[in-house]
Amino acid sequence: MQSSESFGEEQEFRVRKLELSDKSKGFIELLQQLSLCDSVSDKEFEDRFRELSSLGDDHVICVIEDPGSGKIVATGSVFIEKKFLRNCGKVGHIEDVVVDSSARGMNLGKKVIGFLTDHARAIGCYKVILDCSLENRIFYEKCGFKQKEIQMVMYFI
Amino acid sequence: MQSSESFGEEQEFRVRKLELSDKSKGFIELLQQLSLCDSVSDKEFEDRFRELSSLGDDHVICVIEDPGSGKIVATGSVFIEKKFLRNCGKVGHIEDVVVDSSARGMNLGKKVIGFLTDHARAIGCYKVILDCSLENRIFYEKCGFKQKEIQMVMYFI
Repeated sequence: MQSSESFGEEQEFRVRKLELSDKSKGFIELLQQLSLCDSVSDKEFEDRFRELSSLGDDHVICVIEDPGSGKIVATGSVFIEKKFLRNCGKVGHIEDVVVDSSARGMNLGKKVIGFLTDHARAIGCYKVILDCSLENRIFYEKCGFKQKEIQMVMYFI
Repeated sequence: MQSSESFGEEQEFRVRKLELSDKSKGFIELLQQLSLCDSVSDKEFEDRFRELSSLGDDHVICVIEDPGSGKIVATGSVFIEKKFLRNCGKVGHIEDVVVDSSARGMNLGKKVIGFLTDHARAIGCYKVILDCSLENRIFYEKCGFKQKEIQMVMYFI
């Protein structure tokens, strides 16, 4: 795996894996900038954290902590889908990428995507995919992605 | 969970979960109609089958077997992603839906999608998503989906 040190010269803004203590560093508040997320109790957070940790390399959440404020200012996740297709191939699915509104323009999003795609490649995926809004297409193209299909959704609640 | 019996009156074409013996019933050949899939050895198939089975309800592959020929004529999968977003919510991801070219027009695709979305709903997902080509949009709209975002992809091989 590529280490987080290699993602540019801003050594202070390093990408690392989510830790249990990140809940108190604004991780949930950061997710709220992306989508609905009411308060999550410490117990709920810990349970989900341990559930995801048990999946090991098959589900990785990364974060960037602002070394000045100690706040989590960027995050993203990737999980590994195992298929029969493509000779029992694997696909990385990137989800929940968000950069704090106060930390835009510092290439943190690109660092997060680099970390997640490197992980998917290292784990042996033949591709990595994600869904995004039309307005975010250019950002992902700069990260090396190409538009392919359309996303369909059915909400239950 | 809704049982497979409730998906219409064609009782003979029932949706059920993938079984190990389905490899000899043309399951891999069916996937080849969707994307690249060279021959998969019995050992590779069994290993992947057991790996996915160990995930229980978090990764379900369903099939429809033609009671006349004994061949697998439709399949689809859904896996459950666990998030922190949406109050530690869950999302169903539908993948690898394909109906045999000789069995089109019998609503088998709709049965497969019904089975997979019912599973995601029963397991407590707040939504289920999938990626498809523009030309398949109308089919999924008839299944109750709506177009939302775009899919971006990065190939490694």
